[in-house]
Amino acid sequence: MVGQSNMAGRGYLKDVKQIYDEHIKMLINGRWQTMTEPINFDRPTAGIGLAASFAGAWRLKNENGQIGLIPCADGGSSLDDWEVGGALFENAVFQAKAAQRMSTLSGILWHQGENDSFVGRSAVYYDKLDVIVDAFRRELGVPDIPFIAGGLGDFLTRGRYGQYFTEYNAVNQSLQKFAETRPNAYFVTAAGLKANQDDLHFDAVSQRKFGTRYFEAFFEKRSVMIPPDNENELVNIIQDRALTPKEQTALLEISFAAGKISLSDLEGELALINIK
Amino acid sequence: MVGQSNMAGRGYLKDVKQIYDEHIKMLINGRWQTMTEPINFDRPTAGIGLAASFAGAWRLKNENGQIGLIPCADGGSSLDDWEVGGALFENAVFQAKAAQRMSTLSGILWHQGENDSFVGRSAVYYDKLDVIVDAFRRELGVPDIPFIAGGLGDFLTRGRYGQYFTEYNAVNQSLQKFAETRPNAYFVTAAGLKANQDDLHFDAVSQRKFGTRYFEAFFEKRSVMIPPDNENELVNIIQDRALTPKEQTALLEISFAAGKISLSDLEGELALINIK
Repeated sequence: MVGQSNMAGRGYLKDVKQIYDEHIKMLINGRWQTMTEPINFDRPTAGIGLAASFAGAWRLKNENGQIGLIPCADGGSSLDDWEVGGALFENAVFQAKAAQRMSTLSGILWHQGENDSFVGRSAVYYDKLDVIVDAFRRELGVPDIPFIAGGLGDFLTRGRYGQYFTEYNAVNQSLQKFAETRPNAYFVTAAGLKANQDDLHFDAVSQRKFGTRYFEAFFEKRSVMIPPDNENELVNIIQDRALTPKEQTALLEISFAAGKISLSDLEGELALINIK
Repeated sequence: MVGQSNMAGRGYLKDVKQIYDEHIKMLINGRWQTMTEPINFDRPTAGIGLAASFAGAWRLKNENGQIGLIPCADGGSSLDDWEVGGALFENAVFQAKAAQRMSTLSGILWHQGENDSFVGRSAVYYDKLDVIVDAFRRELGVPDIPFIAGGLGDFLTRGRYGQYFTEYNAVNQSLQKFAETRPNAYFVTAAGLKANQDDLHFDAVSQRKFGTRYFEAFFEKRSVMIPPDNENELVNIIQDRALTPKEQTALLEISFAAGKISLSDLEGELALINIK
Protein backbone atom coordinates (compact mmCIF):
# COMPACT_ATOMS: atom_id res chain seq x y z
CA MET A 1 0.00 0.00 0.00
CA VAL A 2 1.88 3.02 -1.28
CA GLY A 3 0.76 6.47 -2.24
CA GLN A 4 -1.06 9.26 -0.47
CA SER A 5 -4.23 9.69 1.55
CA ASN A 6 -6.63 7.86 -0.75
CA MET A 7 -4.44 4.74 -0.49
CA ALA A 8 -4.19 5.12 3.29
CA GLY A 9 -7.97 5.61 3.35
CA ARG A 10 -10.17 8.40 4.63
CA GLY A 11 -13.60 6.79 4.33
CA TYR A 12 -15.70 7.02 7.49
CA LEU A 13 -15.78 3.76 9.44
CA LYS A 14 -19.47 4.22 10.27
CA ASP A 15 -20.48 4.16 6.60
CA VAL A 16 -19.63 0.53 5.80
CA LYS A 17 -19.73 -2.89 7.41
CA GLN A 18 -16.53 -4.09 8.99
CA ILE A 19 -14.36 -6.60 7.12
CA TYR A 20 -12.78 -8.98 9.62
CA ASP A 21 -11.23 -12.26 8.52
CA GLU A 22 -8.41 -14.00 10.29
CA HIS A 23 -6.99 -14.95 6.89
CA ILE A 24 -6.46 -11.26 6.14
CA LYS A 25 -3.45 -9.77 7.92
CA MET A 26 -1.77 -6.41 8.18
CA LEU A 27 1.87 -5.73 8.96
CA ILE A 28 2.40 -3.70 12.13
CA ASN A 29 5.82 -3.30 13.75
CA GLY A 30 7.21 -5.89 11.35
CA ARG A 31 4.73 -8.62 12.31
CA TRP A 32 1.44 -9.90 10.90
CA GLN A 33 -1.77 -9.47 12.83
CA THR A 34 -5.40 -9.88 11.82
CA MET A 35 -6.47 -6.86 9.83
CA THR A 36 -8.74 -4.25 11.33
CA GLU A 37 -9.51 -0.87 9.84
CA PRO A 38 -8.00 1.69 9.68
CA ILE A 39 -5.09 -0.36 8.31
CA ASN A 40 -2.81 2.49 7.33
CA PHE A 41 -2.73 4.81 10.32
CA ASP A 42 -0.79 7.68 8.81
CA ARG A 43 -2.95 10.48 10.20
CA PRO A 44 -5.64 10.92 12.87
CA THR A 45 -8.13 11.00 9.99
CA ALA A 46 -7.19 7.51 8.72
CA GLY A 47 -10.24 5.43 7.87
CA ILE A 48 -11.58 3.08 5.23
CA GLY A 49 -9.30 2.51 2.25
CA LEU A 50 -9.41 0.22 -0.73
CA ALA A 51 -7.09 -2.50 0.57
CA ALA A 52 -9.59 -4.25 2.84
CA SER A 53 -12.07 -5.06 0.07
CA PHE A 54 -9.15 -5.88 -2.25
CA ALA A 55 -8.12 -8.51 0.29
CA GLY A 56 -11.72 -9.62 0.75
CA ALA A 57 -12.07 -10.15 -3.00
CA TRP A 58 -8.80 -12.08 -3.04
CA ARG A 59 -10.16 -14.33 -0.31
CA LEU A 60 -13.21 -15.22 -2.43
CA LYS A 61 -10.77 -16.75 -4.93
CA ASN A 62 -8.48 -18.27 -2.26
CA GLU A 63 -10.61 -20.11 0.24
CA ASN A 64 -7.74 -21.40 2.35
CA GLY A 65 -5.10 -18.79 1.58
CA GLN A 66 -3.83 -15.95 3.68
CA ILE A 67 -3.18 -12.46 2.42
CA GLY A 68 -1.25 -9.68 4.14
CA LEU A 69 -1.38 -5.93 3.62
CA ILE A 70 1.66 -3.70 4.19
CA PRO A 71 0.53 -0.16 5.01
CA CYS A 72 3.04 2.48 3.81
CA ALA A 73 0.90 5.26 2.32
CA ASP A 74 1.25 8.77 3.64
CA GLY A 75 -1.29 11.56 3.34
CA GLY A 76 -0.45 14.54 1.15
CA SER A 77 2.73 12.99 -0.26
CA SER A 78 3.96 14.03 -3.70
CA LEU A 79 6.10 11.94 -6.05
CA ASP A 80 9.07 13.98 -4.81
CA ASP A 81 8.23 12.82 -1.29
CA TRP A 82 8.47 9.27 -2.67
CA GLU A 83 11.89 9.79 -4.23
CA VAL A 84 14.23 6.82 -4.05
CA GLY A 85 16.22 7.01 -0.82
CA GLY A 86 13.77 9.36 0.86
CA ALA A 87 11.98 8.62 4.12
CA LEU A 88 8.75 7.25 2.62
CA PHE A 89 10.52 5.07 0.06
CA GLU A 90 12.97 3.70 2.61
CA ASN A 91 10.18 2.98 5.07
CA ALA A 92 8.16 1.11 2.45
CA VAL A 93 11.20 -0.96 1.44
CA PHE A 94 11.94 -1.78 5.07
CA GLN A 95 8.35 -2.83 5.76
CA ALA A 96 8.16 -4.91 2.60
CA LYS A 97 11.45 -6.62 3.42
CA ALA A 98 10.18 -7.38 6.91
CA ALA A 99 7.16 -9.05 5.30
CA GLN A 100 9.43 -10.95 2.93
CA ARG A 101 11.02 -12.67 5.93
CA MET A 102 7.76 -14.58 6.31
CA SER A 103 5.82 -14.15 3.09
CA THR A 104 5.91 -13.66 -0.67
CA LEU A 105 5.34 -10.20 -2.10
CA SER A 106 2.69 -10.39 -4.78
CA GLY A 107 1.60 -6.90 -5.68
CA ILE A 108 2.08 -3.17 -5.28
CA LEU A 109 -1.09 -1.15 -4.74
CA TRP A 110 -0.56 2.49 -5.65
CA HIS A 111 -2.85 5.48 -5.37
CA GLN A 112 -1.21 8.86 -5.64
CA GLY A 113 -1.30 11.94 -7.77
CA GLU A 114 -3.50 14.56 -6.14
CA ASN A 115 -0.38 16.28 -4.91
CA ASP A 116 1.11 16.27 -8.42
CA SER A 117 -1.98 17.78 -10.07
CA PHE A 118 -0.89 21.38 -10.23
CA VAL A 119 1.88 23.85 -11.14
CA GLY A 120 3.04 21.70 -14.05
CA ARG A 121 3.92 18.62 -12.02
CA SER A 122 1.67 16.38 -14.10
CA ALA A 123 4.01 16.77 -17.09
CA VAL A 124 6.80 14.88 -15.32
CA TYR A 125 4.57 12.36 -13.55
CA TYR A 126 5.28 9.40 -15.83
CA ASP A 127 9.05 9.71 -15.64
CA LYS A 128 9.18 10.22 -11.90
CA LEU A 129 6.85 7.30 -11.27
CA ASP A 130 8.89 5.08 -13.54
CA VAL A 131 12.05 5.64 -11.47
CA ILE A 132 10.21 4.89 -8.23
CA VAL A 133 8.49 1.72 -9.44
CA ASP A 134 11.73 0.41 -10.97
CA ALA A 135 13.53 1.03 -7.68
CA PHE A 136 10.87 -0.77 -5.64
CA ARG A 137 11.03 -3.79 -7.93
CA ARG A 138 14.82 -3.85 -7.91
CA GLU A 139 15.39 -3.26 -4.18
CA LEU A 140 12.81 -5.86 -3.22
CA GLY A 141 14.02 -8.39 -5.77
CA VAL A 142 10.61 -8.67 -7.45
CA PRO A 143 11.20 -7.44 -11.03
CA ASP A 144 7.88 -8.74 -12.38
CA ILE A 145 5.57 -7.84 -9.51
CA PRO A 146 2.23 -6.39 -10.63
CA PHE A 147 1.89 -2.65 -10.09
CA ILE A 148 -1.71 -1.47 -9.86
CA ALA A 149 -2.57 2.21 -9.88
CA GLY A 150 -6.02 3.70 -9.50
CA GLY A 151 -7.22 6.89 -11.09
CA LEU A 152 -7.91 10.16 -9.35
CA GLY A 153 -11.52 11.06 -8.62
CA ASP A 154 -13.53 13.26 -10.94
CA PHE A 155 -14.79 15.27 -7.97
CA LEU A 156 -11.40 16.81 -7.17
CA THR A 157 -11.78 20.15 -8.90
CA ARG A 158 -15.22 20.80 -7.39
CA GLY A 159 -14.52 21.26 -3.72
CA ARG A 160 -12.87 23.39 -1.11
CA TYR A 161 -9.40 22.39 -2.30
CA GLY A 162 -10.26 22.26 -6.02
CA GLN A 163 -7.77 24.93 -7.08
CA TYR A 164 -4.94 22.50 -6.30
CA PHE A 165 -6.10 19.80 -8.72
CA THR A 166 -6.36 21.55 -12.07
CA GLU A 167 -4.12 18.91 -13.73
CA TYR A 168 -5.75 15.82 -12.29
CA ASN A 169 -6.81 14.66 -15.75
CA ALA A 170 -3.25 14.85 -17.00
CA VAL A 171 -2.13 12.72 -14.05
CA ASN A 172 -4.81 10.16 -14.88
CA GLN A 173 -3.55 10.08 -18.46
CA SER A 174 0.01 9.52 -17.21
CA LEU A 175 -1.14 6.63 -15.01
CA GLN A 176 -2.97 5.08 -17.98
CA LYS A 177 0.03 5.53 -20.21
CA PHE A 178 2.19 3.93 -17.54
CA ALA A 179 -0.09 0.89 -17.54
CA GLU A 180 -0.03 0.72 -21.33
CA THR A 181 3.71 1.01 -21.74
CA ARG A 182 5.34 -0.55 -18.68
CA PRO A 183 5.38 -4.30 -17.96
CA ASN A 184 2.94 -5.75 -15.42
CA ALA A 185 1.37 -2.38 -14.73
CA TYR A 186 -2.39 -1.88 -14.65
CA PHE A 187 -4.70 1.10 -14.37
CA VAL A 188 -8.00 1.06 -12.47
CA THR A 189 -10.64 3.63 -13.25
CA ALA A 190 -12.17 5.73 -10.49
CA ALA A 191 -15.20 6.52 -12.66
CA GLY A 192 -18.42 6.87 -10.70
CA LEU A 193 -16.74 6.90 -7.30
CA LYS A 194 -17.81 9.55 -4.80
CA ALA A 195 -16.10 11.70 -2.21
CA ASN A 196 -16.51 12.79 1.37
CA GLN A 197 -17.77 16.32 1.93
CA ASP A 198 -14.22 17.53 1.29
CA ASP A 199 -14.36 16.54 -2.41
CA LEU A 200 -10.88 15.22 -1.85
CA HIS A 201 -11.14 11.76 -0.32
CA PHE A 202 -13.10 8.80 -1.66
CA ASP A 203 -15.93 7.94 0.69
CA ALA A 204 -16.04 4.56 2.41
CA VAL A 205 -18.59 2.99 0.06
CA SER A 206 -16.52 4.05 -2.95
CA GLN A 207 -13.31 2.70 -1.40
CA ARG A 208 -14.99 -0.69 -1.00
CA LYS A 209 -15.86 -0.69 -4.71
CA PHE A 210 -12.42 0.59 -5.69
CA GLY A 211 -10.76 -2.30 -3.85
CA THR A 212 -12.73 -4.85 -5.87
CA ARG A 213 -11.69 -3.04 -9.07
CA TYR A 214 -8.05 -3.21 -7.98
CA PHE A 215 -8.52 -6.92 -7.38
CA GLU A 216 -10.01 -7.44 -10.82
CA ALA A 217 -6.93 -5.80 -12.33
CA PHE A 218 -4.67 -7.95 -10.14
CA PHE A 219 -6.51 -11.19 -10.88
CA GLU A 220 -7.14 -10.66 -14.59
CA LYS A 221 -3.77 -8.98 -15.20
CA ARG A 222 -5.33 -6.16 -17.19
CA SER A 223 -6.42 -2.59 -16.67
CA VAL A 224 -9.99 -1.97 -15.54
CA MET A 225 -11.29 0.91 -17.62
CA ILE A 226 -15.02 0.48 -16.99
CA PRO A 227 -16.64 -0.02 -13.56
CA PRO A 228 -17.67 -3.69 -13.30
CA ASP A 229 -21.43 -4.31 -13.23
CA ASN A 230 -21.27 -6.61 -10.22
CA GLU A 231 -19.16 -4.52 -7.84
CA ASN A 232 -21.96 -3.68 -5.40
CA GLU A 233 -22.88 -7.34 -5.16
CA LEU A 234 -19.24 -8.31 -4.67
CA VAL A 235 -18.78 -5.78 -1.88
CA ASN A 236 -21.88 -7.13 -0.15
CA ILE A 237 -20.62 -10.71 -0.37
CA ILE A 238 -17.28 -9.67 1.15
CA GLN A 239 -18.85 -7.62 3.94
CA ASP A 240 -21.55 -10.17 4.75
CA ARG A 241 -19.16 -13.11 5.16
CA ALA A 242 -20.11 -15.07 8.31
CA LEU A 243 -17.60 -14.74 11.13
CA THR A 244 -16.11 -17.89 12.64
CA PRO A 245 -16.44 -18.42 16.41
CA LYS A 246 -12.74 -17.54 16.76
CA GLU A 247 -13.28 -14.26 14.91
CA GLN A 248 -16.37 -13.44 16.96
CA THR A 249 -14.35 -14.09 20.11
CA ALA A 250 -11.50 -11.87 18.96
CA LEU A 251 -13.87 -9.00 18.15
CA LEU A 252 -15.53 -9.29 21.56
CA GLU A 253 -12.13 -9.18 23.28
CA ILE A 254 -11.30 -6.05 21.27
CA SER A 255 -14.60 -4.42 22.27
CA PHE A 256 -13.94 -5.24 25.90
CA ALA A 257 -10.36 -3.95 25.85
CA ALA A 258 -11.58 -0.76 24.16
CA GLY A 259 -14.16 -0.22 26.91
CA LYS A 260 -17.13 -0.64 24.59
CA ILE A 261 -18.66 -3.61 26.43
CA SER A 262 -18.57 -4.55 30.11
CA LEU A 263 -16.92 -7.60 31.62
CA SER A 264 -20.29 -9.24 32.21
CA ASP A 265 -21.35 -8.56 28.62
CA LEU A 266 -18.09 -10.05 27.42
CA GLU A 267 -18.54 -13.19 29.46
CA GLY A 268 -22.17 -13.55 28.48
CA GLU A 269 -21.40 -13.20 24.78
CA LEU A 270 -18.44 -15.58 24.97
CA ALA A 271 -20.62 -18.19 26.66
CA LEU A 272 -23.12 -17.92 23.81
CA ILE A 273 -20.37 -18.47 21.23
CA ASN A 274 -19.13 -21.52 23.12
CA ILE A 275 -22.61 -22.99 23.30
CA LYS A 276 -23.26 -22.71 19.57
CA MET B 1 8.58 4.06 22.88
CA VAL B 2 9.35 0.38 23.30
CA GLY B 3 7.64 -2.38 25.20
CA GLN B 4 4.16 -3.85 25.18
CA SER B 5 0.59 -2.57 25.38
CA ASN B 6 0.99 -0.24 28.36
CA MET B 7 3.70 1.63 26.47
CA ALA B 8 1.59 1.72 23.31
CA GLY B 9 -1.32 2.90 25.46
CA ARG B 10 -4.79 1.52 26.07
CA GLY B 11 -6.36 4.37 28.04
CA TYR B 12 -9.72 5.51 26.67
CA LEU B 13 -9.51 8.73 24.66
CA LYS B 14 -12.78 9.99 26.13
CA ASP B 15 -11.40 9.97 29.68
CA VAL B 16 -8.81 12.75 29.35
CA LYS B 17 -8.35 16.07 27.61
CA GLN B 18 -6.46 16.01 24.34
CA ILE B 19 -2.80 17.07 24.29
CA TYR B 20 -2.07 18.87 21.03
CA ASP B 21 1.03 20.99 20.60
CA GLU B 22 2.77 21.62 17.32
CA HIS B 23 6.10 21.39 19.13
CA ILE B 24 5.33 17.74 19.97
CA LYS B 25 5.82 15.38 17.02
CA MET B 26 5.43 11.69 16.33
CA LEU B 27 7.29 9.63 13.75
CA ILE B 28 5.01 8.05 11.15
CA ASN B 29 6.35 6.47 7.96
CA GLY B 30 9.78 7.86 8.76
CA ARG B 31 8.63 11.48 9.01
CA TRP B 32 7.65 13.82 11.82
CA GLN B 33 4.11 15.08 12.12
CA THR B 34 2.29 16.86 14.94
CA MET B 35 1.37 14.33 17.60
CA THR B 36 -2.18 13.17 18.02
CA GLU B 37 -3.33 10.25 20.14
CA PRO B 38 -3.25 7.31 19.78
CA ILE B 39 0.44 7.72 18.97
CA ASN B 40 1.40 4.06 18.89
CA PHE B 41 -1.22 2.38 16.73
CA ASP B 42 -0.20 -1.24 17.28
CA ARG B 43 -3.72 -2.62 17.73
CA PRO B 44 -7.31 -1.50 17.15
CA THR B 45 -7.47 -0.92 20.92
CA ALA B 46 -4.63 1.62 20.93
CA GLY B 47 -5.42 4.66 23.05
CA ILE B 48 -3.87 6.97 25.62
CA GLY B 49 -0.34 6.09 26.70
CA LEU B 50 2.24 7.77 28.85
CA ALA B 51 4.30 9.39 26.10
CA ALA B 52 2.00 12.34 25.42
CA SER B 53 2.16 13.73 28.95
CA PHE B 54 5.88 12.90 29.08
CA ALA B 55 6.29 15.17 26.06
CA GLY B 56 3.96 17.75 27.57
CA ALA B 57 6.06 17.84 30.75
CA TRP B 58 9.21 18.18 28.65
CA ARG B 59 7.66 21.16 26.88
CA LEU B 60 7.08 22.94 30.20
CA LYS B 61 10.87 22.92 30.63
CA ASN B 62 11.63 23.70 26.95
CA GLU B 63 9.47 26.58 25.86
CA ASN B 64 10.88 26.82 22.35
CA GLY B 65 12.08 23.27 21.87
CA GLN B 66 10.58 20.49 19.82
CA ILE B 67 10.27 16.89 20.97
CA GLY B 68 9.49 13.83 18.89
CA LEU B 69 8.09 10.46 19.90
CA ILE B 70 8.97 7.26 18.03
CA PRO B 71 6.19 4.67 18.51
CA CYS B 72 7.53 1.09 18.43
CA ALA B 73 5.68 -0.70 21.25
CA ASP B 74 3.69 -3.81 20.46
CA GLY B 75 0.88 -5.26 22.53
CA GLY B 76 1.45 -8.59 24.26
CA SER B 77 5.14 -8.75 23.40
CA SER B 78 7.51 -10.68 25.64
CA LEU B 79 11.24 -10.07 26.05
CA ASP B 80 11.77 -12.96 23.66
CA ASP B 81 9.68 -11.08 21.11
CA TRP B 82 12.15 -8.21 21.59
CA GLU B 83 15.23 -10.34 21.02
CA VAL B 84 18.03 -8.66 19.13
CA GLY B 85 17.54 -9.22 15.40
CA GLY B 86 13.86 -10.05 15.76
CA ALA B 87 11.07 -8.17 13.99
CA LEU B 88 10.22 -5.77 16.83
CA PHE B 89 13.84 -4.95 17.63
CA GLU B 90 14.72 -4.40 13.98
CA ASN B 91 11.67 -2.22 13.44
CA ALA B 92 12.51 -0.06 16.46
CA VAL B 93 16.12 0.35 15.27
CA PHE B 94 14.93 1.27 11.79
CA GLN B 95 12.46 3.85 13.10
CA ALA B 96 14.99 5.35 15.49
CA LYS B 97 17.58 5.60 12.72
CA ALA B 98 15.02 7.31 10.50
CA ALA B 99 14.51 9.85 13.28
CA GLN B 100 18.26 10.26 13.66
CA ARG B 101 18.44 11.53 10.07
CA MET B 102 16.70 14.68 11.34
CA SER B 103 16.98 14.68 15.11
CA THR B 104 18.96 13.67 18.19
CA LEU B 105 17.88 10.61 20.15
CA SER B 106 17.61 11.53 23.81
CA GLY B 107 15.87 8.75 25.65
CA ILE B 108 14.39 5.26 25.58
CA LEU B 109 10.98 4.89 27.22
CA TRP B 110 10.32 1.28 28.17
CA HIS B 111 7.27 -0.39 29.64
CA GLN B 112 7.15 -4.13 29.40
CA GLY B 113 6.97 -7.14 31.64
CA GLU B 114 3.38 -8.33 31.90
CA ASN B 115 4.16 -11.03 29.39
CA ASP B 116 7.20 -12.16 31.41
CA SER B 117 5.31 -12.41 34.69
CA PHE B 118 4.62 -16.14 34.72
CA VAL B 119 6.06 -19.66 34.26
CA GLY B 120 9.44 -18.62 35.65
CA ARG B 121 10.23 -15.97 33.09
CA SER B 122 10.77 -13.29 35.72
CA ALA B 123 13.94 -15.04 36.90
CA VAL B 124 15.71 -14.30 33.63
CA TYR B 125 14.21 -10.86 33.08
CA TYR B 126 17.25 -8.83 34.12
CA ASP B 127 19.70 -10.68 31.90
CA LYS B 128 17.46 -10.68 28.84
CA LEU B 129 16.69 -6.97 29.22
CA ASP B 130 20.37 -6.18 29.61
CA VAL B 131 21.19 -7.74 26.23
CA ILE B 132 18.38 -5.81 24.52
CA VAL B 133 19.20 -2.42 26.02
CA ASP B 134 22.91 -2.85 25.26
CA ALA B 135 22.07 -3.71 21.67
CA PHE B 136 19.80 -0.68 21.25
CA ARG B 137 22.49 1.64 22.60
CA ARG B 138 25.18 0.08 20.43
CA GLU B 139 23.24 -0.16 17.15
CA LEU B 140 21.96 3.40 17.46
CA GLY B 141 25.33 4.81 18.50
CA VAL B 142 23.98 6.26 21.76
CA PRO B 143 25.89 4.41 24.50
CA ASP B 144 24.86 6.77 27.29
CA ILE B 145 21.24 7.36 26.38
CA PRO B 146 18.89 7.34 29.38
CA PHE B 147 16.74 4.21 29.68
CA ILE B 148 13.56 4.72 31.68
CA ALA B 149 11.41 1.77 32.71
CA GLY B 150 8.11 1.98 34.56
CA GLY B 151 6.81 -0.59 36.99
CA LEU B 152 3.94 -2.99 36.39
CA GLY B 153 0.59 -2.14 37.96
CA ASP B 154 -0.46 -3.59 41.31
CA PHE B 155 -3.86 -4.41 39.86
CA LEU B 156 -2.59 -7.12 37.52
CA THR B 157 -3.30 -10.20 39.61
CA ARG B 158 -6.85 -9.11 40.42
CA GLY B 159 -8.60 -9.28 37.09
CA ARG B 160 -9.83 -11.52 34.35
CA TYR B 161 -6.29 -12.28 33.20
CA GLY B 162 -4.76 -12.31 36.69
CA GLN B 163 -3.52 -15.90 36.54
CA TYR B 164 -0.92 -14.85 33.96
CA PHE B 165 0.77 -12.28 36.21
CA THR B 166 1.75 -14.21 39.33
CA GLU B 167 5.38 -13.04 39.05
CA TYR B 168 4.73 -9.37 38.35
CA ASN B 169 6.43 -8.37 41.62
CA ALA B 170 9.58 -10.22 40.65
CA VAL B 171 9.60 -8.39 37.32
CA ASN B 172 9.28 -5.08 39.15
CA GLN B 173 12.23 -6.05 41.34
CA SER B 174 14.26 -6.87 38.23
CA LEU B 175 13.43 -3.50 36.69
CA GLN B 176 14.47 -1.74 39.91
CA LYS B 177 17.68 -3.75 40.11
CA PHE B 178 18.37 -2.85 36.48
CA ALA B 179 18.05 0.84 37.33
CA GLU B 180 20.30 0.43 40.38
CA THR B 181 23.06 -1.49 38.64
CA ARG B 182 23.16 -0.35 35.01
CA PRO B 183 24.36 3.10 33.86
CA ASN B 184 21.81 5.80 32.97
CA ALA B 185 18.88 3.55 33.78
CA TYR B 186 15.97 4.70 35.90
CA PHE B 187 12.90 3.06 37.41
CA VAL B 188 9.52 4.76 37.71
CA THR B 189 6.98 3.48 40.20
CA ALA B 190 3.45 2.62 39.11
CA ALA B 191 2.20 2.91 42.70
CA GLY B 192 -1.33 4.24 42.98
CA LEU B 193 -2.07 3.98 39.26
CA LYS B 194 -5.36 2.42 38.21
CA ALA B 195 -6.53 0.14 35.42
CA ASN B 196 -9.30 -0.16 32.89
CA GLN B 197 -12.01 -2.69 33.65
CA ASP B 198 -9.66 -5.39 32.33
CA ASP B 199 -7.24 -4.96 35.29
CA LEU B 200 -4.53 -5.18 32.68
CA HIS B 201 -4.11 -1.76 31.10
CA PHE B 202 -3.49 1.53 32.86
CA ASP B 203 -6.44 3.84 32.44
CA ALA B 204 -6.06 7.15 30.64
CA VAL B 205 -5.87 9.30 33.78
CA SER B 206 -3.15 7.06 35.18
CA GLN B 207 -1.20 7.12 31.94
CA ARG B 208 -1.18 10.90 32.07
CA LYS B 209 0.32 10.76 35.58
CA PHE B 210 2.74 8.01 34.61
CA GLY B 211 4.12 10.15 31.79
CA THR B 212 4.95 12.99 34.18
CA ARG B 213 6.73 10.48 36.44
CA TYR B 214 8.75 9.24 33.47
CA PHE B 215 9.66 12.83 32.73
CA GLU B 216 10.76 13.45 36.30
CA ALA B 217 13.11 10.46 36.03
CA PHE B 218 14.39 11.74 32.67
CA PHE B 219 14.87 15.30 33.86
CA GLU B 220 16.30 14.58 37.30
CA LYS B 221 18.31 11.57 36.13
CA ARG B 222 17.13 9.42 39.01
CA SER B 223 14.55 6.77 39.73
CA VAL B 224 11.13 7.89 40.91
CA MET B 225 10.15 5.58 43.73
CA ILE B 226 7.33 7.64 45.26
CA PRO B 227 4.48 9.27 43.32
CA PRO B 228 5.16 13.02 43.17
CA ASP B 229 2.73 15.19 45.17
CA ASN B 230 2.11 17.58 42.30
CA GLU B 231 1.38 15.16 39.48
CA ASN B 232 -2.34 15.93 39.18
CA GLU B 233 -1.57 19.63 38.99
CA LEU B 234 1.15 19.01 36.41
CA VAL B 235 -1.19 16.96 34.23
CA ASN B 236 -3.78 19.72 34.37
CA ILE B 237 -1.24 22.35 33.34
CA ILE B 238 -0.20 20.21 30.38
CA GLN B 239 -3.75 19.44 29.28
CA ASP B 240 -5.03 23.00 29.78
CA ARG B 241 -2.32 24.66 27.70
CA ALA B 242 -3.93 27.25 25.39
CA LEU B 243 -3.88 26.29 21.72
CA THR B 244 -2.34 28.68 19.21
CA PRO B 245 -4.49 29.84 16.26
CA LYS B 246 -2.43 27.54 14.02
CA GLU B 247 -3.17 24.56 16.28
CA GLN B 248 -6.87 25.43 16.47
CA THR B 249 -6.93 25.59 12.67
CA ALA B 250 -5.21 22.24 12.32
CA LEU B 251 -7.66 20.56 14.72
CA LEU B 252 -10.62 22.01 12.84
CA GLU B 253 -9.23 20.70 9.55
CA ILE B 254 -8.85 17.27 11.13
CA SER B 255 -12.43 17.34 12.42
CA PHE B 256 -13.67 18.31 8.98
CA ALA B 257 -11.66 15.63 7.18
CA ALA B 258 -12.93 13.07 9.67
CA GLY B 259 -16.53 14.08 8.97
CA LYS B 260 -17.14 15.38 12.48
CA ILE B 261 -18.00 18.93 11.43
CA SER B 262 -19.61 20.26 8.27
CA LEU B 263 -18.00 22.50 5.68
CA SER B 264 -20.03 25.48 6.86
CA ASP B 265 -19.04 24.83 10.49
CA LEU B 266 -15.41 24.60 9.41
CA GLU B 267 -15.55 27.88 7.55
CA GLY B 268 -17.42 29.61 10.36
CA GLU B 269 -14.93 28.46 12.98
CA LEU B 270 -11.94 29.34 10.83
CA ALA B 271 -13.33 32.84 10.32
CA LEU B 272 -13.58 33.25 14.10
CA ILE B 273 -9.94 32.23 14.55
CA ASN B 274 -8.84 34.67 11.87
CA ILE B 275 -10.79 37.51 13.46
CA LYS B 276 -9.25 37.02 16.91
